[in-house]
This record gives sequence, C-alpha cells and structure tokens, in this order.
Amino acid sequence: DIAERAASLFESGSLTGARVVITAGPTREAIDPVRYISNHSSGKMGYALAEAARDAGAQVTLISGPVNLPAPERVQVIDVVSARDMLEASLARMGHCDIFIASAAVADYRPLSPEAQKIKKSGETVELTLIKNPDVVATIAAHEQRPFTVGFAAETQDVDSYARGKLVAKKLDMIVANDVSRNDIGFNSDMNAVSVFWNENQQSFAPRSKTGLAIELIELIAHRYQHYNDNPRSEAE
Amino acid sequence: DIAERAASLFESGSLTGARVVITAGPTREAIDPVRYISNHSSGKMGYALAEAARDAGAQVTLISGPVNLPAPERVQVIDVVSARDMLEASLARMGHCDIFIASAAVADYRPLSPEAQKIKKSGETVELTLIKNPDVVATIAAHEQRPFTVGFAAETQDVDSYARGKLVAKKLDMIVANDVSRNDIGFNSDMNAVSVFWNENQQSFAPRSKTGLAIELIELIAHRYQHYNDNPRSEAE
Repeated sequence: DIAERAASLFESGSLTGARVVITAGPTREAIDPVRYISNHSSGKMGYALAEAARDAGAQVTLISGPVNLPAPERVQVIDVVSARDMLEASLARMGHCDIFIASAAVADYRPLSPEAQKIKKSGETVELTLIKNPDVVATIAAHEQRPFTVGFAAETQDVDSYARGKLVAKKLDMIVANDVSRNDIGFNSDMNAVSVFWNENQQSFAPRSKTGLAIELIELIAHRYQHYNDNPRSEAE
Repeated sequence: DIAERAASLFESGSLTGARVVITAGPTREAIDPVRYISNHSSGKMGYALAEAARDAGAQVTLISGPVNLPAPERVQVIDVVSARDMLEASLARMGHCDIFIASAAVADYRPLSPEAQKIKKSGETVELTLIKNPDVVATIAAHEQRPFTVGFAAETQDVDSYARGKLVAKKLDMIVANDVSRNDIGFNSDMNAVSVFWNENQQSFAPRSKTGLAIELIELIAHRYQHYNDNPRSEAE
C-alpha cells in the first residue's frame, strides 16, 4: 500500500542528493492593478510532489504561484505571480537543478498592455488583446544546462494525443496528463488521476489521493531519471 | 478601544432583528474550463463585516465568491462563482433583506463567449471580447423592494471623487471607498483604511485591522440605517 511504498522510498532514498525544482499553482497575469487572468489550480499536486521528492531524499525548491497552502517543511519555497516571474525563477536555478517538474498551471497568454491604473470602462464590450507568454517548461527543456524535465498537461478532450504531442514538441523527458473536464478529480479536489507518457511508453494511475499519487509519480520519475543518467544518449534522441 | 466598542455594540444590539445581506470576495468569469478573469480580493473585509453585523444582533447572509476563509459561525454562507451568480443570489433575498452591503470585488466584464473546451491557441496574440456584467449593487439599489444599500469602491486614483460619483449614479445610501494602490492595506492585507460617504457627509478611518474597521463600519451603518428608517423620505430624494 501507499504507506509501505512511501516507507520503502524513504529507505531507498531514490532521489538522495538530487536537486529537484518543482513549479506549482496558477500564475496571474495583470490586466490592471485590480483585475487579472488566471487558471484554476489549487497547487495541491505540486506541493504533494515537493513533499514526496523531499521524502525520497531530494533537495527541493518549490516555485509557487499564488495558492493558499502552507510551505512544506524542509523545502525552499519561492513565491511568484506571473508566468514571466516563474520562468525567471526557474532559469535562475539552471546549473543547480537535476530534475525539473513543471506542475504549475501557467497562463499561456497575458494582457498585451496592462494598465498602471484601474481601467475605467463604460462601453458594453471591451476588446482585450492577449500576447503569448513564454513557455516555461519548453524553455527549460531547451536550455543548454537542461535538467531531466517533466511536464504536465491539463486537457479537457483528446487528453492522450495532446499530451503525446506536447511531450515531443517541447522535448520533454516525461509528461503527466490529466483530464480536467472531470468534476471528481483535479483542480481543487484532493483526488487526481493521470496518465504518464515517455518515449513510446505510458503508465496510467486510477483516481487516488494527490498525496498518494505524488509518491508514486516521484518513484516513477526517480526510476526514469536513473535510466536517463545511465543512458544519456538514448534519451537525447 | 475596539473591544469596548464591540462589547457596547453587542449590548446595544444596534442591528437586533435586522436582516443583513453581505457580498464578499472576488467573482470569477470563465474564459474556458481552465482559464478565467478575476479581481484581487481575499474576502477578509466582507467576512469581518459579517461577523461584526452578527455580533450587533443581525441575522446575516454572506454571499461569497471563491475565497479561502472559514464560514463565520451563525452566518448563512451562499457560495457563488460569477457576477451573474452573485446577482441571482442577491435578488433571491429581496423582500427578506433590510440592509445590503456589497463588499465583493465583482468583475465588471466577462468573456462574451466562454468556450466549453480548453481553447487551443497557437497565434502570438489573441483578441478576447469582454461584455459588461450586471452591476450587482446598482441593481439592488434600484429594486422595488430595495433595502438600505451600502456599496464599496476600490480605486487607484481620485478615490474620493470616483466614490462620490458612484454614490449618486448607483443611488446608494452609503459608499465605502478604499485606495487599492497602497501596498500596506487592502487586498490580501489584514489592514485597511477607508473613507465613507453618504449624502453630503464623509467620515475617514485611518489604517487599522479589518476586524476593528468592520466593527466601526457596522456601527456607522447601523446609525445611518436607523436614521433612514426614521426619515424615509429625506433619504429617497
């Protein structure tokens, strides 16, 4: 069971000495000082991953968007707001990061011209121009000092094919996909169900607690990371 | 001091028997199942007002957007997400509401056509069309069974003149204005400073705890509400 697996992980210290950076939560993109665009994300999955990685012996940094969760013990937490803040904090860790796990729900677009003062509007409609944000996990995966890079994909349809597409397009080592159209799991729930993809492989996890899932994901990531270190060339293809 | 004033309020029961409806927190306006537009608001001010009104003897309903606060004891909490949800819940109380306090940070615009599936975008920019939301507090103030209606104004400049303008335009009985450009107060802070306007009058409150401020605001609102009941015609002009 989970407790047993957690204990064996702790004993095996499957990530002992590894420096793990995890992003979590949403980002917020300012429209003006009062309004913003964001994504649904409680941060619970990322925080659970940080605790599981710490318990597996890793030195963990958590780069967190605005959430309402207590900082995990013995984890360094860096608070950020926007996607650009999150990228900057992530890039600052390159060279000191062995595994990068991008669980944050990063806003992929931001308002082109945020206003310094609260916008006064009177019209019935308003046109808001959004511009693409940097892709945090793709930027890290393309970095010259790239760590073993794990992405997340939150989809509402064709989950597997979108996830596989992102795995390849963003040159990730692994991707964790979840179907956020389901009401029983994900977002603010304490439960989650995911499928993990790497190379031509796939492993699915039925609905379970985010804490339990995090332990199993860290175990799988540690296993793949070990393989990556032993066979760097095959992973780079 | 505050504790003394709270105690005297409780003793005087300045709102005994009054039915008070308070809106609190932000609203969220869906772009698609994953993304939304929102406003900065912790809900702390509204929740503190609910507790202060309850302690002054009122029967309190709190209509709350998504926040991370525990439900106050002996207060009925109605959870809502969007501005339209908030209006609907507020209108459902008309006829059973003596005082309406609109402290929520309602999004004044929402995406015109929210998508049922997560939007897949690839372009560098995206145009998002927003449409005006209903004005919750103005709708209540214009209702045929209108209660004594108190609005809030969060401004970043010309705070007093914008607040006075809203007092008149929305036909409110009182308006509470705060300057949200200040970093030390408002939003997620436990502190706040406001100015309250009614008729030709104004009263300012220097920075203090939201809990203490809530007690003083409820005292002032109860006083004005008493005057309104005693002189209905002068207030209706």
